[in-house]
Amino acid sequence: MKIVIVGASGTMGSYLANALEKEHEIVRADRKKGDVQVDITSPEAIEKMYQKLGAFDALICTAGPTYVGPWKNLTDKEFRSGVEGKMMGQINLVLIGQHYINPKGSFTLITGALTHEPQKNFANASAANAAIEGFVRAAAIELENGIRINAVSPTVIENSPQYFPFFPGEMPVTMKQLEYGFRKSVFGANTGQVLKPY
Amino acid sequence: MKIVIVGASGTMGSYLANALEKEHEIVRADRKKGDVQVDITSPEAIEKMYQKLGAFDALICTAGPTYVGPWKNLTDKEFRSGVEGKMMGQINLVLIGQHYINPKGSFTLITGALTHEPQKNFANASAANAAIEGFVRAAAIELENGIRINAVSPTVIENSPQYFPFFPGEMPVTMKQLEYGFRKSVFGANTGQVLKPY
Repeated sequence: MKIVIVGASGTMGSYLANALEKEHEIVRADRKKGDVQVDITSPEAIEKMYQKLGAFDALICTAGPTYVGPWKNLTDKEFRSGVEGKMMGQINLVLIGQHYINPKGSFTLITGALTHEPQKNFANASAANAAIEGFVRAAAIELENGIRINAVSPTVIENSPQYFPFFPGEMPVTMKQLEYGFRKSVFGANTGQVLKPY
Repeated sequence: MKIVIVGASGTMGSYLANALEKEHEIVRADRKKGDVQVDITSPEAIEKMYQKLGAFDALICTAGPTYVGPWKNLTDKEFRSGVEGKMMGQINLVLIGQHYINPKGSFTLITGALTHEPQKNFANASAANAAIEGFVRAAAIELENGIRINAVSPTVIENSPQYFPFFPGEMPVTMKQLEYGFRKSVFGANTGQVLKPY
């Protein structure tokens, strides 16, 4: 299976790329590194990436910039970080990618527990995550040719301890649990689901 | 209580304005009609509206433009309709309005069943609704001075039968049920909730 991982240089993306490359052809995509470069805030850059890639069987996205910071600084301008990044970036990966992916292929996007369990400083991520989850459910009934779509929604992840202080009482998911979540989406038959690997 | 209704010329907004004006001071806001005009896709226009209004106790928004149409026509461009309208329009009403609303005031936004129950042609609304619901939960733990925020999420509404064919098997909510939903948010003590008046 040819699997594209967008965000392949990040904590989650690099772990997944290493875990899956033993069995599959992995294309590492990222803003500045990897096999192919893509700025997901640009629909034109996404289209160019797909043109370079050729046909593929699965796309995993672990990239999702959002604004993190005090509520008092949160205006329309800061909110755009998550709107253009984690939200429209991932939505455009699907809207454009559906024309390049193989029949019976799958898209797996990243959200997170903030959708339903907010934390201070992360309102932008709560909105972007929720938008992706609503989109995933809707896209699942629209995509044709057996193409599937799911989201994986972890809590904080064990390899990013710098976030632990912002998530009091949040039980971290292990990298192995995270991998299970993505495996369930890519190799299972689910569609329109928000998978919580914990 | 001084209650601002944004979208006051629409089906829901005009019903609510008429229902609540017997007991409260209602300010009707809309794009082109009403006591005050506002284009919610413009943060500058929202700021100007609040400056004109002066202090108020509750804001109800029933305005939420989105793209409705075939999935095959849905690109980044069409998706912006719901992003700028129902999503960022309502979010900016809160981010800006929090500086004008009275202590213990409330914001009540509009979403809909499409968040969890998608229908063909409405993926844009599913994403925008979900984003608002995620935002409402997050804003509830950030807003100060006892300011509350909720969303009301109806199914199709009885006074908009033109939508019934797009929602097979969806039981319409009555206008009275809808009114109960908004009353629960504005006059109750809830915050961070998605109220389903059915």
